[in-house]
Amino acid sequence: MSTDAYPEHLREEVERYLQEMRFSTEALTAGLEAAMRYSLLAGGKRIRPVLALASARALGLEQREVLPLAGAIELIHTYSLIHDDLPAMDDDALRRGAPTCHVKFGEDVAILAGDGLYAEAFHHLLSNQRSPPERVLAAAVELAGATGVSGMVGGQYADVNPHTPSGPEALRRLHELKTGRLIGASVLCVLLLGGIADGPATIQFRRFAAELGVLFQIVDDILDVTGTDDALGKPRGSDERHGKRTYVSEFGIDRARELAAESHRMAREALAEAGMGTDPPHATGELEQITDFIYTRTS
Amino acid sequence: MSTDAYPEHLREEVERYLQEMRFSTEALTAGLEAAMRYSLLAGGKRIRPVLALASARALGLEQREVLPLAGAIELIHTYSLIHDDLPAMDDDALRRGAPTCHVKFGEDVAILAGDGLYAEAFHHLLSNQRSPPERVLAAAVELAGATGVSGMVGGQYADVNPHTPSGPEALRRLHELKTGRLIGASVLCVLLLGGIADGPATIQFRRFAAELGVLFQIVDDILDVTGTDDALGKPRGSDERHGKRTYVSEFGIDRARELAAESHRMAREALAEAGMGTDPPHATGELEQITDFIYTRTS
Repeated sequence: MSTDAYPEHLREEVERYLQEMRFSTEALTAGLEAAMRYSLLAGGKRIRPVLALASARALGLEQREVLPLAGAIELIHTYSLIHDDLPAMDDDALRRGAPTCHVKFGEDVAILAGDGLYAEAFHHLLSNQRSPPERVLAAAVELAGATGVSGMVGGQYADVNPHTPSGPEALRRLHELKTGRLIGASVLCVLLLGGIADGPATIQFRRFAAELGVLFQIVDDILDVTGTDDALGKPRGSDERHGKRTYVSEFGIDRARELAAESHRMAREALAEAGMGTDPPHATGELEQITDFIYTRTS
Repeated sequence: MSTDAYPEHLREEVERYLQEMRFSTEALTAGLEAAMRYSLLAGGKRIRPVLALASARALGLEQREVLPLAGAIELIHTYSLIHDDLPAMDDDALRRGAPTCHVKFGEDVAILAGDGLYAEAFHHLLSNQRSPPERVLAAAVELAGATGVSGMVGGQYADVNPHTPSGPEALRRLHELKTGRLIGASVLCVLLLGGIADGPATIQFRRFAAELGVLFQIVDDILDVTGTDDALGKPRGSDERHGKRTYVSEFGIDRARELAAESHRMAREALAEAGMGTDPPHATGELEQITDFIYTRTS
């Protein structure tokens, strides 16, 4: 397992694409656009859009073809971070070592920057994704579902709701919704755009996508306890301070580490089987790198 | 001019449709869905979706065909009300005589209820609108654009931003974005779904839609000064307390009334010309009723 490889060339392509995005030429909204771009261009590994590009390559599609989808997914991820950081939610002042959007621009602007990023994500995807219309529709349905009540927003609600039941089952479901579905959609939407969502390798790709979401979350919970403030870009231990249910609070750190190892193994297995679905086999090397990176990352 | 007619049968059809909407069967998110439905089903004239249904009838489409679009538009309108009412925005405790979403469910849940309604609006439109895929795409692009940075969210930003310039030009543009584009989209999306967005009557329908947005806002500003608390469902004068730029603060009440009358006349003219674009002429009776209602309403 390569512990430090990451498909940097895909990250750089995503970064360039995001840098070039503009949302409006309207003078009245220049300050809103500045707040949106402040959070959008704050760096990071761009795991979700890189996953979309790597999925395209694995499926024999041209990676550039799915850039509008990849960009839309990162806009949505950024919106979710801005709203999660709000005083009424997690009340976080720092993200990746920099002031969060509401600290920098005010709470009202931060709410609207999140709202605007979500609207522009759909506007961008639906206007720019050059695939047959019925496939763009199918991908957009998946993306809206993955970020709605049965997805990201529903998961965030379960996370802030003090009446959410405890126990491993509710914990797993909460994270499937909050984190897993958008990570999964980064793979699934590419299958849908390629018109191969019912193809032979699809079941394994779906298994892979779902497991990757679980793996991401377990590692996230571990890092919140074991990471350094510097690497995380925010104070360690914020989950515990917020009384969050995590894999560590639920199972303890040692068992959480075992669960991460299991989840990593299952994701790699599903990916290996997905790769063998066609002849010649799918080129899943970059997806393997991303899977390993999610498992071994330190921030 | 009929001062009290309103196409109630269309409003009732919208109401029934909204009542039947469910977003998820997920147990973990039942409380979120309750908050979304609380605000969605708080009544009102449903002007935007009724406008969509009436536009369909005027264009010779079956009104039931555009119900998914109409429902999506009302979900989006509801989301915008919830976010506008938040403490960090207008900080309103009452709407239509009932506690606002954040007063009833807490600020975190209200932010997420708004986010969820917007996601579900796109999910609903893209999943349920039975029109050729390229037309559904075109309508969804219009709706995302009308509610993004160059639309509703951008207008709300300009409204809360203390550095937004004063003067009639900025005021008109602010309201075109904040209110006008979604009202306009309620007509335009129907043209797009019908595949007649480039047809002969379209320029006039577009003029009508744009003018209706202006008319709505001027009357809104007048009502905030002249309406009764009971009819408005919230304390009168909230614009002035929030230091909002309005047609009344900019022009005074008498000139604002003149502007409303002018705008009403122009909307009716555009509609009359749109109605004559085909043989047999479009059945624009219900659109006339809505136009008159927007002009003469008391709440």
